Amino acid sequence: MLEGVEGAGKTTQAAMLAAWLRGRGHAVTVTREPGGTDAGEAVRAVLLDRPDLELSAETELLLVLAARAALVRQVVEPAVAQGKMVVADRFSLSTFAYQGYGRGLDLPEVQRLDRFARGGLEPDLVVLLDLPVREGARRQRAVGKGSDRIEGAGARFHERVAAGYHDFARREPSDARTIQVVDGLGTPDEVHERIVAVLRAQFPGTF
Amino acid sequence: MLEGVEGAGKTTQAAMLAAWLRGRGHAVTVTREPGGTDAGEAVRAVLLDRPDLELSAETELLLVLAARAALVRQVVEPAVAQGKMVVADRFSLSTFAYQGYGRGLDLPEVQRLDRFARGGLEPDLVVLLDLPVREGARRQRAVGKGSDRIEGAGARFHERVAAGYHDFARREPSDARTIQVVDGLGTPDEVHERIVAVLRAQFPGTF
Repeated sequence: MLEGVEGAGKTTQAAMLAAWLRGRGHAVTVTREPGGTDAGEAVRAVLLDRPDLELSAETELLLVLAARAALVRQVVEPAVAQGKMVVADRFSLSTFAYQGYGRGLDLPEVQRLDRFARGGLEPDLVVLLDLPVREGARRQRAVGKGSDRIEGAGARFHERVAAGYHDFARREPSDARTIQVVDGLGTPDEVHERIVAVLRAQFPGTF
Repeated sequence: MLEGVEGAGKTTQAAMLAAWLRGRGHAVTVTREPGGTDAGEAVRAVLLDRPDLELSAETELLLVLAARAALVRQVVEPAVAQGKMVVADRFSLSTFAYQGYGRGLDLPEVQRLDRFARGGLEPDLVVLLDLPVREGARRQRAVGKGSDRIEGAGARFHERVAAGYHDFARREPSDARTIQVVDGLGTPDEVHERIVAVLRAQFPGTF
């Protein structure tokens, strides 16, 4: 799972990691959230592409989780059953950071709802790409990326999200090995090398 | 809140009840689920009008609840704050019957998720319109109503839903006064009179 603020490089790194894994003979499925299934893409359109819609924090959370529930059951579980590796561009940690810390919903409640949506599925490794919010925003402007409803939620929202990612990574001792913070500064190749190093350290002998 | 199987007369009775209440000088808001807000109608379209979409039971539940969370916060709570009465065509009990009993999701989990979606809002009265599933289906055919994704889910599904409504009404002692079963057979006027009688019995001196 690749996590991090807007512009942290998740999508780029997911593609590079998938290519690297395939180069080593692994079958790989790449997912993105919200979306990745027909139902999830329909939900994504409601969530992100309709700035006219008034969405409460609770509604936003339940929509994100509806898309996740579809993705887990229709894409991730079948892929795992076929022995594939799954590289995910966002998963549960995004929900804790955006809807929990960012929108201010009760975190234990968010975690419980997320557990229901993902059906107990646990990632083997979560890479949190660490990048200052401003640097992420600068990167997105540099590539001319327009902003959707959540991306346009304001600098303070995104600072809470970033703080939430780190707070969560620190305060969950049971996830201490699962969540690995990787410096997101530098070129895509440099960040990719760091992710590969983490993978090798976490799964010795596998890669 | 009006509840019951497909064709039980919820929508007709909600309109008649609202007219009756308005005739007595009450301001009334009528809601329907899923839907009733821009966000909820967008979700409704995903839920009901896209038979091409594969939706797991979990995804269906989370979508229903996303629409409810929007309805409660944007319509019901503001109406109550203005001193209005709210007549709802479906609410939480539908979710327990359809997604709990009908789809087979764990009922305590469904109830917990529902509590989050409705933000703790509790109805004063739930009228369960009691009608055999076959009679409801016959009524819907008689008015030439096409079936959406959930309506078309099969007779056994709808029998589980109907059994669920009654089982839930029986087994929840704390809701014993809140949930009132009303015979849905007969003409709309006959059923309306029964609902009015229940209202008068439940809230003596109010109507």
